[in-house]
Amino acid sequence: MFISFEGIDCCGKTTQVALLIERLQSLGHRVLLLREPGGTTISEKIREILLDKRNLKMTQISELLLFSASRSQLVNEVIKPALQQRSIVICDRYVDSTTAYQGYGRGLPLGAVKTINRVATMDVMPALTFFIDITVKEMHERRRASRQEADRMEMGTEEFFQRVREGYHAIAQEEPERFTVINGLQTVEAVQEEIWRRLEGRLPERND
Amino acid sequence: MFISFEGIDCCGKTTQVALLIERLQSLGHRVLLLREPGGTTISEKIREILLDKRNLKMTQISELLLFSASRSQLVNEVIKPALQQRSIVICDRYVDSTTAYQGYGRGLPLGAVKTINRVATMDVMPALTFFIDITVKEMHERRRASRQEADRMEMGTEEFFQRVREGYHAIAQEEPERFTVINGLQTVEAVQEEIWRRLEGRLPERND
Repeated sequence: MFISFEGIDCCGKTTQVALLIERLQSLGHRVLLLREPGGTTISEKIREILLDKRNLKMTQISELLLFSASRSQLVNEVIKPALQQRSIVICDRYVDSTTAYQGYGRGLPLGAVKTINRVATMDVMPALTFFIDITVKEMHERRRASRQEADRMEMGTEEFFQRVREGYHAIAQEEPERFTVINGLQTVEAVQEEIWRRLEGRLPERND
Repeated sequence: MFISFEGIDCCGKTTQVALLIERLQSLGHRVLLLREPGGTTISEKIREILLDKRNLKMTQISELLLFSASRSQLVNEVIKPALQQRSIVICDRYVDSTTAYQGYGRGLPLGAVKTINRVATMDVMPALTFFIDITVKEMHERRRASRQEADRMEMGTEEFFQRVREGYHAIAQEEPERFTVINGLQTVEAVQEEIWRRLEGRLPERND
């Protein structure tokens, strides 16, 4: 089973993924956690280029193509083999990030973005995607509170993140079966419970 | 004016480009020579990933996307500004290499390759392309004679290079106005004369 998590920065993805993995493992499931971009030797080299703050001249198109190149490696080298071995694969960001950030956020033509997404994933898509939704205002507040320094991808105007968030909501309308919106302004526990309720009935048998 | 050179390895591109630049400069033209992949900070980092022989697990799709990402940077940072300043831009390989190597050679779907090519170049296309055509047998003989070690892109079966060559001929059929086939088995001087005859009447005024 393939599950992905999506959302703007500081939405709580990482915390939720960690809690979910703990729960799944305690039930005897084999779980593989992946983060994008990265996860293979080649993808990690691409990640360095993408996140390096000195690369401010990067074109939006180059960015799109680099994310997709990194993803193609991850699908082939890691995701497909893990799914064949009946692991649960959890991706912290996947193809919807490209649609939301590069398509809606940067304004690249959605038709081309979708063609490139299909090529890069070879149609390997998550069975379930959890979009943890917070407001852009909340993102800024959480960032200030955590005093994290932003990488190249985390820099962007208020309007940019607004468009990204709208992009995620547009995907939710197009693919309601796969793409679930979860209110990320609730407590950590409440968010996790919503994720679990949605997931529980669809889990495969465990791998003991 | 934008000119590109294409062909399989050892076809003599580099020699011909050097001779042409000398001639153009002696006539007072400002000429910028570029090689693909590379030519910008980001593109050179992508070049390292592409040519590194340790990256044997690279998917064909990832390769296509990395070449295209590198090209997008080159078009934006270098080619467009140079053309605006009325330089003659000469590219040692450009978008036709992607069509020939990744499309025809690797067998990726030509429709997707063309979409990605259009996105990466933003339709910045050469006015003239010289395809210096040699046989695959001749390529092997020249390689043996020069004892050059092949990089990752230069490794490939006999059949692969055969398909690449056929791909170039297919482009020649589709775009005879832009894409000129030149017999690379002639002497260096004869090849250069053919290039010059084709180019001469179309040169812009020189930049003194």
